Amino acid sequence: MQIDDLKAFRQWGSRTPGHPENFETDGVEVTTGPLGQGFANAVGLALAEKHLAARFNKPDLTVVDHYTYVILGDGCQMEGVANEAASLAGHWGLGKLIAFYDDNHISIDGSTAIAFTEDVLARYEALGWHTIWVQNGNTGYDDIRAAIKEAKEVKDKPTLIKVTTTIGYGSPNKASTHSVHGSALGSKEVEATRKNLSWAHEPFHVPDEVKRHWAHHLDEGASLEAEWNAKFAEYEKKYQHEAAELNSIISGKLPDGWDNALPKYTPESPADATRNLSQQCLNALAKVIPGFLGGSADLASSNMTLLKMFGDFQKDTPEERNIRFGVREHAMGAVCNGIAVHSPGLIPYCSTFFVFTDYMRAPIRLSALSESGVIFVMTHDSIGLGEDGPTHQPVEQLFSLRAMPGILMLRPADGTETSAAYRIAVINRKRPSILALSRQKLPQLEGTSVEGVAKGGYVISDNSSGNKPDLILISTGSELEIAEKAAGQLRKEGKSVRVVSLVCWELFEEQPEEYKESVLPSEVTSRISIEAGVTLGWEKYIGQKGKAIGIDRFGSSAPAGRIYKELGLTVENLIATAKSL
Amino acid sequence: MQIDDLKAFRQWGSRTPGHPENFETDGVEVTTGPLGQGFANAVGLALAEKHLAARFNKPDLTVVDHYTYVILGDGCQMEGVANEAASLAGHWGLGKLIAFYDDNHISIDGSTAIAFTEDVLARYEALGWHTIWVQNGNTGYDDIRAAIKEAKEVKDKPTLIKVTTTIGYGSPNKASTHSVHGSALGSKEVEATRKNLSWAHEPFHVPDEVKRHWAHHLDEGASLEAEWNAKFAEYEKKYQHEAAELNSIISGKLPDGWDNALPKYTPESPADATRNLSQQCLNALAKVIPGFLGGSADLASSNMTLLKMFGDFQKDTPEERNIRFGVREHAMGAVCNGIAVHSPGLIPYCSTFFVFTDYMRAPIRLSALSESGVIFVMTHDSIGLGEDGPTHQPVEQLFSLRAMPGILMLRPADGTETSAAYRIAVINRKRPSILALSRQKLPQLEGTSVEGVAKGGYVISDNSSGNKPDLILISTGSELEIAEKAAGQLRKEGKSVRVVSLVCWELFEEQPEEYKESVLPSEVTSRISIEAGVTLGWEKYIGQKGKAIGIDRFGSSAPAGRIYKELGLTVENLIATAKSL
Repeated sequence: MQIDDLKAFRQWGSRTPGHPENFETDGVEVTTGPLGQGFANAVGLALAEKHLAARFNKPDLTVVDHYTYVILGDGCQMEGVANEAASLAGHWGLGKLIAFYDDNHISIDGSTAIAFTEDVLARYEALGWHTIWVQNGNTGYDDIRAAIKEAKEVKDKPTLIKVTTTIGYGSPNKASTHSVHGSALGSKEVEATRKNLSWAHEPFHVPDEVKRHWAHHLDEGASLEAEWNAKFAEYEKKYQHEAAELNSIISGKLPDGWDNALPKYTPESPADATRNLSQQCLNALAKVIPGFLGGSADLASSNMTLLKMFGDFQKDTPEERNIRFGVREHAMGAVCNGIAVHSPGLIPYCSTFFVFTDYMRAPIRLSALSESGVIFVMTHDSIGLGEDGPTHQPVEQLFSLRAMPGILMLRPADGTETSAAYRIAVINRKRPSILALSRQKLPQLEGTSVEGVAKGGYVISDNSSGNKPDLILISTGSELEIAEKAAGQLRKEGKSVRVVSLVCWELFEEQPEEYKESVLPSEVTSRISIEAGVTLGWEKYIGQKGKAIGIDRFGSSAPAGRIYKELGLTVENLIATAKSL
Repeated sequence: MQIDDLKAFRQWGSRTPGHPENFETDGVEVTTGPLGQGFANAVGLALAEKHLAARFNKPDLTVVDHYTYVILGDGCQMEGVANEAASLAGHWGLGKLIAFYDDNHISIDGSTAIAFTEDVLARYEALGWHTIWVQNGNTGYDDIRAAIKEAKEVKDKPTLIKVTTTIGYGSPNKASTHSVHGSALGSKEVEATRKNLSWAHEPFHVPDEVKRHWAHHLDEGASLEAEWNAKFAEYEKKYQHEAAELNSIISGKLPDGWDNALPKYTPESPADATRNLSQQCLNALAKVIPGFLGGSADLASSNMTLLKMFGDFQKDTPEERNIRFGVREHAMGAVCNGIAVHSPGLIPYCSTFFVFTDYMRAPIRLSALSESGVIFVMTHDSIGLGEDGPTHQPVEQLFSLRAMPGILMLRPADGTETSAAYRIAVINRKRPSILALSRQKLPQLEGTSVEGVAKGGYVISDNSSGNKPDLILISTGSELEIAEKAAGQLRKEGKSVRVVSLVCWELFEEQPEEYKESVLPSEVTSRISIEAGVTLGWEKYIGQKGKAIGIDRFGSSAPAGRIYKELGLTVENLIATAKSL
């Protein structure tokens, strides 16, 4: 980071964008900006440290040992995600998490008195935190140092240090007002502030004294690093297995042949819900990938996300890998983002019902934006969940997430596709994946393949020749079975029909034109899509002459089969639609 | 509600769906299911009561006077939205809000001890609530009655009554386990439970004693209603103006000619940001619609949402109409849903940056599902916000919300369209509207119209004849200006070019085929869309031969003009694209 970088603040292509971005600027650990996220990320970072320390430290060699510091403001404190994350941090006893709450009484709309009058410290105490109040945060450096020391001594609880400050401290006319929140002071007030603070230097000038002070940190850092390297060399000798695991976690290099562990399925494998097949994959991966860990927002037994060979990550068992997030989807996502950026080889997954991605869209987006590679395991992915009704039945979520840049939205149809989807998810370490999985049983299909899923879309059955079928049926997930059955009947009636699984639109779009044309030849305009979700967006693949069968309304509470029938997601309707083209 | 309705529990078309739905079942006030929402809705209901009571009660006649009761469980307590809402309720001193917290120690994954060990009552006290603990919630009816009495006596704070209960109380083998959370007991355990509770009646039999008890409530209700009607008749005589306003709020009948109050703009009106024009509309509507109220999540001065003739709704000034939500987008949405369902004539609006719809998707969806008609005023609707960078720049939000059933997603281009969008939003009382508004200045366009906006899509300029332009440019909001300018240049070069404003896709889709064909004639396949968002979905209107100019990536931190240029949202690029077709 050079002085010129600072001068390019908020300019195109600079390393100093308006909000710090981990992918733009070295040393920025998480992308922040949306309030409350950074705090919840810090809980994830502290969780990662506690977990790794418990797994890898030995009585004679401590190789994982750091604090996690986070600064948050009044706005962060108001956000629900921060309370969720704080509740988890207290429950987990993250003693090495130290949060500074910048209590400056001002948010964008003015005094916090207009909307925020709770007793923050009392709330954190209720959440199991140790709290400290530094009353003079502007100049009380010794008080801040003493608070940090005290925080470090409390080992079984995270600490919130409320630091009362003056926003715009030093500005004679704008301090303590909201006009310094997001706007520049203006040259006149800058001048007055410089005078007030006795700061005689030119803009962007760093005095030698300051340079000297920081230079000393460079040396210190280098010597700490050398010390750690020596220690780790010893560790590698004494604890080969652990060192190999920790090296994989630190470097992000996956163990050779890890993907051989993924389960394989054949058309003869029993019909099953993809959420159950997903659990087989999760368990297979956790056996071979040292940094694989995660959990659910109080739906582990519905999402099928428990790792059977591990216990729960808890305050006193932090070496375990099943994380119990409680009903806190938003914090779950943000905590996983924190875990993911802690070490490239930590691969966190998290889970809830697909519809509740709505509770955690902000962290999903930040996972994509900050290249965090979290795996979002989303079950109960359609009206196929049945009786819980429209509040629980996703219809627009597939499309709304396909619209989000930087993620892979995968909706596998059977065991082979589920296993293949996990392979993609693990490989894509800088791109989060969302897996939409069924609650209901699905058959193992004949034509699904691992290679096909890697291309995002592929032909799973076809009785045409010369790349010219009469009709193309395109589907994903649980409706692929319907497409296959309808194709079978239409073929009996003499039609040439191709069935395409479009399991991941983003991957399909990345294929060469030639491949895409081989799957969806442009001269074949008789196309029908069938998917248990909104039809908007399907025009991309069915064209203007095609038809989309889907659900352009909210769902309903009833047994799944009945809803499918009432809403026309049936073999009969698909055949009738084909004949109407 | 009849016995047969109960027997149809969770069946297609029944009035007893898996989760209670206000639009299915009389007497269900809000649609619940997604955890924490109902509690936040209750805060909105209590806010509405406090507001209306302050405005309409007179020393001699109390016409608004009710408590709001809500029951919430451990799952609700874990959700961040509940903490946000509780913090607001405490801040506002909603003394007539009484919440029962069903403390049964069990959530879906088992004991709450695995994820939820905070001190809930202490947290609520920190949030400014009065708290009471009923230790025997299974049979301690007198304690519950006493708690309600105590809660009513505390007039300046909401009350949380923690009621410790046994989940599945009475079931000899399944009580206190998570297996009674979402599954039926099974016939054997039902039998054992009946025996245990000495319940000898047949299934679905309501004993006469119970019927008699409830019948008495019918009479009581009728007499309370008659009493109120008589009181209100007196009120109507004494306080004509207030009675007219309250009648409008209770009935939902808008005052005659309300929409004449909406501002009118001409091409000569000064260029302005649609967020500023929006503020003119909000202020105009609040003047003529008695139940119009709302606010922002700490961005009132950026969202431009303050009602200038009113003060802040606060604990001691509840008659005012500017609501200060703090940085609590999620609760803001859910509170507004509660306000909207309180009375059909209450029209709440709420506001934040468009990208932060991600924080409040759950209440937006519930607003649509429960037909609540909230107006979501979302400013800073694109990369046009500039320096704040990608975390603040929506790119996928337009589509992700167009995909949601039951809402109107409007993106007006200038004053006329903004005013028209508000007209649509107010008229649609059962369908929430989202207005996406610009931070940056936009010119007033020549061809925009109120009638056009009402149809969702319309021609704003055209130099073709016979409904056969060479080219159609389709756009929305801030990019409509670019389309107009490009069209002007192309026309100079001899092309016949039509420009279409597709301000609201949902309304356009509802138009007769004939109208749609008149705007977008199917034989014209040279079409280009330009919109500062993802292109996925535009295939619907541009077809497979058309081209979409948009942003299929995250934004960037830089001055707005620079980002538009770098990402190709320019007149030049649009013209070049037109020539490449």
